[in-house]
Amino acid sequence: MKKPRKQDFPVYKARRYLEPGPVVLVSSKWRDRTNIMTMGWHNIMEFSPSLFGCLISSGNHSYHMIRNSRECVINLPTTALTDTVARIGNCTGSEIDKFAEFHLTAEEATEVQAPLIAECHANFECRLHDDILVDKYNYFIFEIVKAHVAPTPAHPETLHYLGDGAFMTAGAIVDRRELFTKVS
Amino acid sequence: MKKPRKQDFPVYKARRYLEPGPVVLVSSKWRDRTNIMTMGWHNIMEFSPSLFGCLISSGNHSYHMIRNSRECVINLPTTALTDTVARIGNCTGSEIDKFAEFHLTAEEATEVQAPLIAECHANFECRLHDDILVDKYNYFIFEIVKAHVAPTPAHPETLHYLGDGAFMTAGAIVDRRELFTKVS
Repeated sequence: MKKPRKQDFPVYKARRYLEPGPVVLVSSKWRDRTNIMTMGWHNIMEFSPSLFGCLISSGNHSYHMIRNSRECVINLPTTALTDTVARIGNCTGSEIDKFAEFHLTAEEATEVQAPLIAECHANFECRLHDDILVDKYNYFIFEIVKAHVAPTPAHPETLHYLGDGAFMTAGAIVDRRELFTKVS
Repeated sequence: MKKPRKQDFPVYKARRYLEPGPVVLVSSKWRDRTNIMTMGWHNIMEFSPSLFGCLISSGNHSYHMIRNSRECVINLPTTALTDTVARIGNCTGSEIDKFAEFHLTAEEATEVQAPLIAECHANFECRLHDDILVDKYNYFIFEIVKAHVAPTPAHPETLHYLGDGAFMTAGAIVDRRELFTKVS
């Protein structure tokens, strides 16, 4: 499968890809084992530092790996990976090696031990910034410390989970810049 | 403008509309004044209770109204309201009455004092559930206590903010239910 060629991307602009609400693949590494989970409950929280909050249920194998390593990578899949995204969310890393099972390429990250998924459009390396809500809500607040983004296509066809096994895909772009007093 | 006819909707299913990451309009009321803000940084956190986290910057007029009233309504606009969504996000309720300015209809809510925006596809009445992150991150954790949703269209054409004055709109639906071991 195609591996988009990526460029460094300013971390404070991560919202460009994550604010629209795509399903993401979360990759992690702990004690020489890697894992991947599908995740849709997330939230940009700040531009700089680039903060990203998300819910990782304690029932997930990834929860313990990320809690222990305090790191992960948020990978942005597109519709080319629809089946893989669904399948990854419906099996557990306690039983299988998801990179091998789904023929995904683990690439070395720059700032964290967790691997990038080469087949995704963008990869955001994350370090745990605040664990204050982990016990109470399974909510992790990460800092995005490094971002890799494919420059094309400008508008990747992302997947947005609706529940019940269905996804909305990214549609047309509408520009209303002329209505903005200050653009951010 | 059209006001969709709505039905009661189970609050634990609110993720159906909010998980895909749409821009929402947040309506509030404090001391007989109402306000509306545009917001895109939010996160479903739990099915039941139906928890919804979101970032409301302290620079917003709505911040103080919601902090004081501990309530708001999350309203789901569609592309029919694109210009209004952009304009609401580019002016302040300290200077104008946004319902009047933008010809929006304030409807009475069931469980909170803040008004519903009748022109939106769905309205989620929220009560502040946990303010633990309000001081540190301007992050509010609400419980959705009542939901009103228009039954048609099944897939409203929502807006997803990209930054720089541009929105992605909702695209095609893809169903992968056959790949899900348990559907939620």
